Parts: sequence; C-alpha cells; structure tokens
Amino acid sequence: MSARTRLTPEARREQLLELGVRMLATRSLEELSIDALAEEAGISRGLLYHYFRTKADFHEAVVERAAADVVRLTAPSGDPDPLVRLLSSVRAYVDYVETNQAGYTSLVQRAAGGNDRLREIYETTRAALTDRIFDAASPEDLVALGLVDDAATRLMVRGWGALVEDVVLAWVRAPAGISKDELITLVTNALVGLLPRP
Amino acid sequence: MSARTRLTPEARREQLLELGVRMLATRSLEELSIDALAEEAGISRGLLYHYFRTKADFHEAVVERAAADVVRLTAPSGDPDPLVRLLSSVRAYVDYVETNQAGYTSLVQRAAGGNDRLREIYETTRAALTDRIFDAASPEDLVALGLVDDAATRLMVRGWGALVEDVVLAWVRAPAGISKDELITLVTNALVGLLPRP
Repeated sequence: MSARTRLTPEARREQLLELGVRMLATRSLEELSIDALAEEAGISRGLLYHYFRTKADFHEAVVERAAADVVRLTAPSGDPDPLVRLLSSVRAYVDYVETNQAGYTSLVQRAAGGNDRLREIYETTRAALTDRIFDAASPEDLVALGLVDDAATRLMVRGWGALVEDVVLAWVRAPAGISKDELITLVTNALVGLLPRP
Repeated sequence: MSARTRLTPEARREQLLELGVRMLATRSLEELSIDALAEEAGISRGLLYHYFRTKADFHEAVVERAAADVVRLTAPSGDPDPLVRLLSSVRAYVDYVETNQAGYTSLVQRAAGGNDRLREIYETTRAALTDRIFDAASPEDLVALGLVDDAATRLMVRGWGALVEDVVLAWVRAPAGISKDELITLVTNALVGLLPRP
C-alpha cells in the first residue's frame, strides 16, 4: 500500500485492519504495535493514529475483526446432516488456529485476562460459535441426535466450546502423534457424547 | 492473631498465608492487597513485607496455597468404583468454586492472562487434577469404563478439565434452574461420554 494510492478513509482503515489481522497470525497482541503496523504498511505513525486513536483502540479493532473472521470461516455449511456440518465447522476452526497460532493464543490469554473490552468480544464470539449449533439445527436434527434444547444442554455446549479451544491449542503446541483428522473426529464426537440425553 | 503471640517465623508465615487464602474467597486478587492483609491480621505492613517481599510474591504464595487446597480437597476418595470417585471429586470441586467464587474467578482470569508465574501454577494444577484420574484408575477400572490410556484420551481428559472449569464458573454466575446435583451429574457423565472408545 503506497501513500499515493487514492483510497477513501474507510477503505484505507479497512486495509490497515486486514493487515493488522494478517500480522496477528504470527505474533502476539503485545508484539503488534502501531510501529510494526506503520512499517509494514509503509506509512507514518502519525497517519495510523488518525485511524486508530490509541494502541488499545487498534488492538480492539483488530481483535474484533479476527473474531468476526473466526465466526465467518467456521459457519455451518448447508449440508443437511448436522454431524457433517459440525465436522466441517470444527475442521475450519482447527485450520484457523493452526494458521494463526501466535495471535490466537495471545488473544485467548488477553481476553481471559484483565482487559474488559477484549473479554467482551471473546465472550460474545464464544457464545455465537456455540449458540448457532442450535440455530442451525432443525427440530428433526435434534431428535436425530437425541438432544433437547434446554438450559442443561446449552450449558454443556458452552463447556464443549471451552474444551475445543483448550484441546486445539494444546494440540497445535504439541500434537503428541495425533493427526489433524483424528483431532477433528475426537472433538466432534465429544460433543455428541457429552450432551445430556433426555 | 496478636503481635504478642509467640510463633516461629514459619508458623506466622503459615498463618498469614491461610488468612490470605480465606480472604481470597470473597475478593479478587486485585483486591487482596498487603494493606488488607495487614489490617485483617492486625499487624504492621512492615512486618508483612518481612514475610512477603513484594505484593507479587504474596499473591504467588496465596495462589500456590489455594491451588494446593483445590488439589487436596478434590483428591479421589478410596471408593473402588471409579465413577463414584469421580463424582465425589467433582462435587468437592463445585463446592470449592461456590465457596471461593470471587477469588477463584480472578485466579483463573489472572492465570490465563499475562502473569507467567501464576499461569505456571495454574497449568501445573490443572494437569495434576486430571492426570490423577488415570493414576487412581487400575487397569480393571479402565477396562470397566471402556477406556485406554493413550495420548488422545489424555488430551480429551485435559479438555474435560477446561469444560468443567468453564461450566462450573458459568453455573455459579447464573444457575439457570440447574441444581447442584444436576450439574455434578452433567459434568461427570460428560467425561465418560466424551472419551474416545478403542
């Protein structure tokens, strides 16, 4: 991106955000500084501060965009079989964590830690990822899976989200001889196995 | 505790640590200051700094002690039935989180966040809590449960630990009509249901 390229402010902000998200793939939030972004974008720090007033605003915007990417990339496919839909969402999630390991790890840690705004984005995203399993399931799907949509089931699906995050992050750090396909099967079957039966 | 009580330095440090752990039950780590401990113990800040050089040292010592308490309180009982052992460990864990909600929530968040030393204590404790499920299980138990002790099973048991933490913390914040007994049954059954079958 050159300073001479004519772009609307919105389009330039968008470019910078996408660059921030790409940079986050291989570094932690701590390492994602305004300086690093300015250098990568080839524009001045002053101009960056025009788009992101503070480093915290920049981090928040990048994390919000990265979270939206996860939700979009792992959206249930149109397959009529709920298990096939689930498998493809889990595969997309594992692919995402593999590709964006450094940034995703630091994002989860920072969100769990002290920052309220990052935690809010994280909690909203976690809820969106698991709630849509029900939103995408027809009443027939639930019957086929032997499930009811009640508070206990929702709570356990939430917990499954925590399990998947923990297991996939542990696996990318140390696969311990488990292949990606095995991992995907393990966590997908886990959801079906761990849910309460009426 | 009075300044006139004659105690060895080790015994006094021990008393202060136990007081710190009790105080952590109802407040976050952020709220657990050297000032608050000094006031509660009725001794000077100066004397406290003799036992805990810095606030970080004090927090680390309290968290280490609290983690040891969780491990001890949730130790598998001597019951020959592995499911009965698991149920009683889960019940002890839920009791602990209920009683120490404020401190435990902040501990999990701080451990997940930026502090390396707290994270190390947290990771070691999480590993101890789930690894001993296998250490306490005889080969006959594993056969009875239809389990093998391999990398995939260990990974999923680790993930179950993340699920339990997430689900129990969500439940203490908002029980959503789920009773404590139901919760304990849900997460205990989940372990059996989510593990890979040979």
